[in-house]
Amino acid sequence: MIMTEIIAKKRDGHALSTEEIEFFIEGYTKGTFPDYQASALLMAIVIKGMTTAETHALTMAMLKSGDVMDLSSIHGIKADKHSTGGVGDKTSIALLPMIAANGVKMAKMSGRGLGFTGGTIDKLESFPGFSCEMSEKQFTDRVNNLGLAIASQTGQLVPADKKLYALRDVTGTVESIPLIVSSIMSKKLAAGADVIVLDVKCGSGAFMKTLDDARELAKEMVEVGKLAGRKTVACITEMSEPLGVAVGNALEIKEAIALLKGEVSGNLRELCLTLGACILTESGAFENHSLSRAALIKGIEDGSALTKLADMVEAQGGERESVYNTELLPKANTVLSVVSDMQGYISEINAGEVGMVSMQLGGGRATKESEIDLSVGIVLRKKVGDRLDKGEILAEIHAKNEEEAKKAAKALLSCYKLSATAPEKVLFIKEIIR
Amino acid sequence: MIMTEIIAKKRDGHALSTEEIEFFIEGYTKGTFPDYQASALLMAIVIKGMTTAETHALTMAMLKSGDVMDLSSIHGIKADKHSTGGVGDKTSIALLPMIAANGVKMAKMSGRGLGFTGGTIDKLESFPGFSCEMSEKQFTDRVNNLGLAIASQTGQLVPADKKLYALRDVTGTVESIPLIVSSIMSKKLAAGADVIVLDVKCGSGAFMKTLDDARELAKEMVEVGKLAGRKTVACITEMSEPLGVAVGNALEIKEAIALLKGEVSGNLRELCLTLGACILTESGAFENHSLSRAALIKGIEDGSALTKLADMVEAQGGERESVYNTELLPKANTVLSVVSDMQGYISEINAGEVGMVSMQLGGGRATKESEIDLSVGIVLRKKVGDRLDKGEILAEIHAKNEEEAKKAAKALLSCYKLSATAPEKVLFIKEIIR
Repeated sequence: MIMTEIIAKKRDGHALSTEEIEFFIEGYTKGTFPDYQASALLMAIVIKGMTTAETHALTMAMLKSGDVMDLSSIHGIKADKHSTGGVGDKTSIALLPMIAANGVKMAKMSGRGLGFTGGTIDKLESFPGFSCEMSEKQFTDRVNNLGLAIASQTGQLVPADKKLYALRDVTGTVESIPLIVSSIMSKKLAAGADVIVLDVKCGSGAFMKTLDDARELAKEMVEVGKLAGRKTVACITEMSEPLGVAVGNALEIKEAIALLKGEVSGNLRELCLTLGACILTESGAFENHSLSRAALIKGIEDGSALTKLADMVEAQGGERESVYNTELLPKANTVLSVVSDMQGYISEINAGEVGMVSMQLGGGRATKESEIDLSVGIVLRKKVGDRLDKGEILAEIHAKNEEEAKKAAKALLSCYKLSATAPEKVLFIKEIIR
Repeated sequence: MIMTEIIAKKRDGHALSTEEIEFFIEGYTKGTFPDYQASALLMAIVIKGMTTAETHALTMAMLKSGDVMDLSSIHGIKADKHSTGGVGDKTSIALLPMIAANGVKMAKMSGRGLGFTGGTIDKLESFPGFSCEMSEKQFTDRVNNLGLAIASQTGQLVPADKKLYALRDVTGTVESIPLIVSSIMSKKLAAGADVIVLDVKCGSGAFMKTLDDARELAKEMVEVGKLAGRKTVACITEMSEPLGVAVGNALEIKEAIALLKGEVSGNLRELCLTLGACILTESGAFENHSLSRAALIKGIEDGSALTKLADMVEAQGGERESVYNTELLPKANTVLSVVSDMQGYISEINAGEVGMVSMQLGGGRATKESEIDLSVGIVLRKKVGDRLDKGEILAEIHAKNEEEAKKAAKALLSCYKLSATAPEKVLFIKEIIR
């Protein structure tokens, strides 16, 4: 096979064979052919697309480029969850204990974040002493014993994705359904779970701006998951304003704990219940979504979900007590209330811009080497649809010092848009695709 | 400006601004950004295309990447000719003296060939002692004194094209009208002529397989030439069987000389007269094509065109006598007549395959370093439309030795297709675009 012929075939809009796709991924991972040939092929894929069969072949070829987790020593059904990324998304931290409390095992691989806030691992490191570094044996033992564990992604899972993603990032080839699907699904399949639940965000604060795009992405991911023999479900959910009220690492941990204590209502709780019901139903733990939801709510009410979180924190080296006493979590020096000089109904809170404010406070990474300040961030007191009057507090800024807090407060105000009448309600859980 | 944004803009089908195109060409020539970004943009251009304004901007940006010939010291109108390339194309060798004999100056830059046969320069080196190496002053002096000169392309003309072409060749991004137009026209414009005549080949033996594609390429080249202030005309001509009868360097020189002696009729002569009439008319030497053709024919009949060729050969260090006595040109050791074992009308002689036979005889270059054997090649005795009987000689093979000649004869036979009835005549000069 000759790489230029494979490039020309895709350029002319033809479907590539499994052998051609494997030749590309294997050769590129090994360095047999150069970046400039890979980027030309990637651009042709972005513009001409791929069939589901091609996307499946691409995903499997990427999967084969590295190690695959062997979770066979874990008894029972293992589930995993993935989100396409949003601002204020602390779902996993609440969801994992909620599932584990109902007897389904959560074996989750997670990453650190680059951008607005930290990733799930960064957030969890708010628990003093907590670590996601562990051997494969420790990981499977913990899942077997407690029902849940979160480990950081090892370097050997899907090295093809690492190399390809770095190239896509600088060649305008990120925006492509087959490339996104294969990137996400190769890693999820390599992580070894039986049940995969995907949270596909949709809206102005998400990568997929329209419902059509989100649906196409969700459908392809579910297809590819099923073709690989995994039970796969995707929920398409709204991401225009930040999810929940907290943006920032320790602040988001506090909100997740509050949820497990039954103190949180609204979209965040609804998302956890919906994703959780998908997992429990697909795993066969309960017959349908209604029974699954009831079980999840019971786990919150009887405290068993919170206990699972405490168990996990303790098992992974964190301070168990900090789950119950959140005063032990990192705290910012300065907390500044942001007072409204506007009046009306909140029609928009730009999620991306709020994320940027949090990053500038020190809560995210601008480069891979940046250190995250776990204590800083934003807590929104008012959300889209709420009435706002002059003099009312609309948010709290948690910052290193007063100067930074004031700068952030000013930036935060420009994230809001107001209208004279209450905005129309947007459907939060848009579709479930299985 | 950021390269990834320019790539994304073209990926999404938008037109690039002149500034963006200049940023790309300047940066890529200087090595400011890497091959993998350039190849991604090239692929987006191949698939999404460019407007005429973009192609013009790209051509001018490439032109500016290097030196531009200053032909202002040459008195009168200077013309140049370019062919998109075909097998057996010795047009320039006959055409230049035909034009110069009629008072219009031909200042031609030419290249060496990679592939089937040598380029015009390789062919001309069949004249013992002939050289295309000269200073810019020697070049303009010769054109002033004799009315014609052929120089080899200098390394400093359009370095952007050299770099881009090498990349396109290995990334499946050769087949693109705007990229082909800018590659050809930047070099033609840099060469400095006032009148540019383009021979756009069309058919199975050409890069452009269909008349529609050839027409699109021709129109864009003419537009870009005019936008740059040059008189530009394109002829679309058939290229399915080889042009004329000879394929091979010295053999093609002999055929060009025969044409200038008035011994050649058919497509090759028709092409020289048509391209020549375009040049003489555009230059203002004659009022219309009929008068121009008559003048060109007169130049053949009175021997003045042949004298011009002899003048040029002598001026560029070659043996003048070899123009009149072609026995002095390189001769192959073995000449083998290929006898037909078929019967019928010749419906096809695959030009590309005949070229390959010539290359395997040693008449072309497989790599940049290959040495060309100027003596070898093929002379076709029968052409498409001719009646062929068993036992008739259909071609002559000129080879190093008998063994190679026999191998070539066998390969040549498979280039022919026969039919029971005479094939339909194909229009040779298809369109003239101005």
